[in-house]
Amino acid sequence: MNLEEKTIASQKIFSGKIVNLRVDTVLLPNGKRGAREIVEHSGAVAIVALDEENNIYLVRQYRKAAQKIMLEIPAGTLNQGEDPLAAAKRELREEIGARAGHWEKICSYYSSPGFCTEELTVYLAAGLTAGNPNPDPDEFLEVTKMPLSQAFDLVRRNEIMDGKSIIGIQYAYWGRQDERPES
Amino acid sequence: MNLEEKTIASQKIFSGKIVNLRVDTVLLPNGKRGAREIVEHSGAVAIVALDEENNIYLVRQYRKAAQKIMLEIPAGTLNQGEDPLAAAKRELREEIGARAGHWEKICSYYSSPGFCTEELTVYLAAGLTAGNPNPDPDEFLEVTKMPLSQAFDLVRRNEIMDGKSIIGIQYAYWGRQDERPES
Repeated sequence: MNLEEKTIASQKIFSGKIVNLRVDTVLLPNGKRGAREIVEHSGAVAIVALDEENNIYLVRQYRKAAQKIMLEIPAGTLNQGEDPLAAAKRELREEIGARAGHWEKICSYYSSPGFCTEELTVYLAAGLTAGNPNPDPDEFLEVTKMPLSQAFDLVRRNEIMDGKSIIGIQYAYWGRQDERPES
Repeated sequence: MNLEEKTIASQKIFSGKIVNLRVDTVLLPNGKRGAREIVEHSGAVAIVALDEENNIYLVRQYRKAAQKIMLEIPAGTLNQGEDPLAAAKRELREEIGARAGHWEKICSYYSSPGFCTEELTVYLAAGLTAGNPNPDPDEFLEVTKMPLSQAFDLVRRNEIMDGKSIIGIQYAYWGRQDERPES
């Protein structure tokens, strides 16, 4: 079966600061027409940031969409044309005020491929040197650090409820004992 | 610091089949006003479905937003007022044509809490009995199964690029040896 859907029309609905929205009319594999609501997002990066004592840095911030204060790994949206690793280094400096001695890509993934173009790249940053955070003027967040095992426990108890943070913390806690080539 | 953002106005932009879009004007912690673009989504479920031989069921489908054919764990959107576990059982029947002898909640999480209300609940379903899939008329997908270790290898090689699938497969591969209370 050819699963692809050819776009035959595209209607722009909204153009914003964080997202755009369009509705595509597509030709389905059965020859019929269908509508696909597509949220456009420029992509993001997230960082599992570990110091020499295996503490992880987390940020606490209010998330309007979830209507709650959430604990997450540091993250941010890509600037226009920005390389993901450069963005991750920038976000780590801005949110945590730190630089890392070792960078490793964990994965890239789509947060919600059914309707959203957002692709996130998650990095592991180790060997952190502390500094002073310098967040954007419209970002309000609290930085905290804790042993990685404690953050993992928050994932297991489902108190950390952010997708990128769950992926990154599961990887850092379970996956680092396995050998893998650095990238 | 009080991190919460009080909504002082809300503008509906779009009301669709999968998402709605609104822009909220909020009072920031520093007393200034800010805009929050919010994509509303009714929530979803995803299932790590394992048979008695530790094979995992996956579905391959074209994702317009990602512009590629993706390999994912079975998943679907919640119907209005639907209980997540009931939705997961329904999706497993529809997409895979199977029932499971054991259900366990892995976690609930927000796919993109910075701008989207979507909350996903991921389940582990074990002891599958095979059957015949019965997908929605506008869903075009291919069902495949493979050893869990092979699916995990696709996660490690970043060939599986879907967030919920990465979370679920990481958990099933790494986490099941640990004792945990069933829920």
